[in-house]
Amino acid sequence: MMEDVQGRPDTRGIAIDLVGICDLTYPIIVPHPLHERTTTIAKFVMAVSLPAEVKGTHMSRFVEILHNHGQELSVDGLPEFVARLRTRLGAERARVEARFPLFLERAAPASGSKALMDYECTFLADASSLGTEVTLGVRVPITTLCPCSKAISDYGAHNQRSYVSLQVRWPIGGQQLTANELISLCEASGSAPVFPLIKRTDERFLTMKAFENPAFAEDVVRNVAQTLQKDARVAWFSVNVVNLESIHNHNAYAQIEWARR
Amino acid sequence: MMEDVQGRPDTRGIAIDLVGICDLTYPIIVPHPLHERTTTIAKFVMAVSLPAEVKGTHMSRFVEILHNHGQELSVDGLPEFVARLRTRLGAERARVEARFPLFLERAAPASGSKALMDYECTFLADASSLGTEVTLGVRVPITTLCPCSKAISDYGAHNQRSYVSLQVRWPIGGQQLTANELISLCEASGSAPVFPLIKRTDERFLTMKAFENPAFAEDVVRNVAQTLQKDARVAWFSVNVVNLESIHNHNAYAQIEWARR
Amino acid sequence: MMEDVQGRPDTRGIAIDLVGICDLTYPIIVPHPLHERTTTIAKFVMAVSLPAEVKGTHMSRFVEILHNHGQELSVDGLPEFVARLRTRLGAERARVEARFPLFLERAAPASGSKALMDYECTFLADASSLGTEVTLGVRVPITTLCPCSKAISDYGAHNQRSYVSLQVRWPIGGQQLTANELISLCEASGSAPVFPLIKRTDERFLTMKAFENPAFAEDVVRNVAQTLQKDARVAWFSVNVVNLESIHNHNAYAQIEWARR
Amino acid sequence: MMEDVQGRPDTRGIAIDLVGICDLTYPIIVPHPLHERTTTIAKFVMAVSLPAEVKGTHMSRFVEILHNHGQELSVDGLPEFVARLRTRLGAERARVEARFPLFLERAAPASGSKALMDYECTFLADASSLGTEVTLGVRVPITTLCPCSKAISDYGAHNQRSYVSLQVRWPIGGQQLTANELISLCEASGSAPVFPLIKRTDERFLTMKAFENPAFAEDVVRNVAQTLQKDARVAWFSVNVVNLESIHNHNAYAQIEWARR
Repeated sequence: MMEDVQGRPDTRGIAIDLVGICDLTYPIIVPHPLHERTTTIAKFVMAVSLPAEVKGTHMSRFVEILHNHGQELSVDGLPEFVARLRTRLGAERARVEARFPLFLERAAPASGSKALMDYECTFLADASSLGTEVTLGVRVPITTLCPCSKAISDYGAHNQRSYVSLQVRWPIGGQQLTANELISLCEASGSAPVFPLIKRTDERFLTMKAFENPAFAEDVVRNVAQTLQKDARVAWFSVNVVNLESIHNHNAYAQIEWARR
Repeated sequence: MMEDVQGRPDTRGIAIDLVGICDLTYPIIVPHPLHERTTTIAKFVMAVSLPAEVKGTHMSRFVEILHNHGQELSVDGLPEFVARLRTRLGAERARVEARFPLFLERAAPASGSKALMDYECTFLADASSLGTEVTLGVRVPITTLCPCSKAISDYGAHNQRSYVSLQVRWPIGGQQLTANELISLCEASGSAPVFPLIKRTDERFLTMKAFENPAFAEDVVRNVAQTLQKDARVAWFSVNVVNLESIHNHNAYAQIEWARR
Repeated sequence: MMEDVQGRPDTRGIAIDLVGICDLTYPIIVPHPLHERTTTIAKFVMAVSLPAEVKGTHMSRFVEILHNHGQELSVDGLPEFVARLRTRLGAERARVEARFPLFLERAAPASGSKALMDYECTFLADASSLGTEVTLGVRVPITTLCPCSKAISDYGAHNQRSYVSLQVRWPIGGQQLTANELISLCEASGSAPVFPLIKRTDERFLTMKAFENPAFAEDVVRNVAQTLQKDARVAWFSVNVVNLESIHNHNAYAQIEWARR
Repeated sequence: MMEDVQGRPDTRGIAIDLVGICDLTYPIIVPHPLHERTTTIAKFVMAVSLPAEVKGTHMSRFVEILHNHGQELSVDGLPEFVARLRTRLGAERARVEARFPLFLERAAPASGSKALMDYECTFLADASSLGTEVTLGVRVPITTLCPCSKAISDYGAHNQRSYVSLQVRWPIGGQQLTANELISLCEASGSAPVFPLIKRTDERFLTMKAFENPAFAEDVVRNVAQTLQKDARVAWFSVNVVNLESIHNHNAYAQIEWARR
């Protein structure tokens, strides 16, 4: 019988907040607004707390639990999944994070041409004896057109691709939000949405739409914040936008974190 | 006279936590344990808070302040630098983060062969009317050798490169720690340090040293934590280690955050 | 009618080798050794040549062709896919590259514990009036254990995760190789393969196996090359290995390119 | 005396094209158009060929040669540096690549406000008994504004940050080109250059300049190619541009490789 080295006692008297695995790539099946379910590929972080008196955790159990779980993962199913991790590792706290692309069909605004857009989504669950906190996240590309550049120039205005990153939580037992809703909110908060496939009529439409809706990084996060603060389902959110500034070799960014009191 | 679009009033009633620039690459001069000062290259994040009633910040001032500052940056000088940012932008809060490589000469343990090692360091300062919080960070490559693999095998033991990331704070006005000290602590907390240039006598020395000092990810963060908790200068730290596991295509990690009460 | 700006004549007299799109993320369905087919997610580069006298290509057609193609992509189907691109864009040359993770179930060598491993694969097709050249690529994580470290030390030997990248071509109309074959060859060419899920009996087995099979970066590429040179199906290959050296903060690498004469 | 394991004979009969180190970070001093010399930080790849009958190269010598060289590196000095590598390793072929940021002061076009811009440069030298081939490379951020978007819209035009990557060679013994020249050429080949620090007058100037000079990815590489083909010093070049398209979540690119006959 081989020794369980991890199970040895530890005398340093120092508990560990989180120990586990990261950068694990694994296929999963997630809910999809149109097709019910869709296959995608996630980057996982899985970890548990470790009490002061135990030398190590059992690293192999993380992958084992994920593999045995089958591939279905959803906001609804996260509490049960992270609870299994917590039980199997005998831990006070367990945490799972899965980051994956979600593909949604997008029809171009004028021609109606259809193709798929990738949106990075995040499922995060953190469970302890106090309960399980679930966080849903999206990262959404948009176009932003600079209000200052437009106002001070006789023609034109610099614009660029920007990424809005939004994480949301709701009260335990409360009504959930969906990735689809969060993506739509982010897309509506900049100068124009971004599409995977556009024809000339769409390019004209989007160029003019962006010009008509200039938005600073500050405007984008405020637009998102304003909508979410009015949404009674939302208990907490964190939003930031990064603009790949077309006039600089550095980026601009803005961020707001908010909790309902 | 061109309009100051950023100065327009905003009626959404939403203050912004941080707005500014990121991914800015700039040369700086930092203190060096041996040569007094050394030139390096930093990635900067610079941001301020924005009150609810103002539309936008003045993005150009961030680079302007950095450029006019001259290139010298140090833990000692950070409070004054971030105070200038706060004043110039008229902000309640200002924040500066600079991440840069620090090169230290390392002599191999047996042959004494010398070359330079790069250690990623971070200067972070966050200032408001409550005071300025300074954080010093390092990221240090080490070797970790798996205690379990060693214990259960007749010969050999898997080992790998690992990265220890450590951030430390001290009380305002308290005695500071140096990047050099933090790097040494991280290097002493794994199975063996890593060197830029080793000859065969060093390779033998380090191979056997790592084999004699097996350390889980859990051991590394506990070793660091144990030393820092005993160090009266330390008010807060956060440490994590990531092992580029030689037996997996994913990594192992562990982390501890701690504040003196 | 909107002007076709891309179709304007160009007078600079300079033909363009390749113009198109890159960093496009799209779901695809590829052949799988066990399940017949599997869904995965690819990063695409799609491009065509442009004659000197035309101003621009039609960027929207790349995504359009990919979307209309349906999601199935295979080494067999690549020539037809890239031919469609060539025809639709009216180009002398067309090129498609898709890089995606392929998941294969791996059973640990002693316990038989099963989980999925991700292997990065690449499909590349380059078509012109001369014919279509297809290249199949894989990137395979392995363990390498240093022969020098083992030979000169009383105990232990440094080892690390390494990545073998292999691209292969066969004669047009010749017998193809499969991603599965290439992966197996790479896994057999280092000190030990890497597994997603191992129990203690496996860790013992793999630790000792790696110790018994020390391999320099040079050995890994030579082992791969030796097998492929003897394989009459192979017309050309390029192989490199990168070792994430456990004793350094830099990597070691080796590479061989070879064409059958 | 410890065995020289690398020096053992190899019986597989397979020579290795290149073996060495990569991802090594090291400080260097390079020529600067204004200050004569400037300190920067490079990522190095250093490698040699290995004959079929030798088991391994001596990895420690790469860092040793780099460290003993002192820090000065220039296009002029590259042939001697790579020759030393070739001699010290007893190799038929040796290759060195250094990629580093070069900081140039840039004055904004209207206000004259000054700050530093980072340009990624590359020194590459490949030496064998046939001679030493030196390649100089730069990567330059610019603004591109879409000619199609401008032509078909009533107002506005989408634009974005783009990166022009250019590598150049000249005949052995011929007149060299400088990084500064290549950077200026790339900056002049898009819709507008990018600046680190601009005030409102500059933003107006650059917004309108970009609008007046629309350029496809195709135009950018043709503009660069046209100038270099006319420059008698140039023996070979490779240029590509990547547009971070503001209307898509993927990029557009174009590339031309050319050799004087």
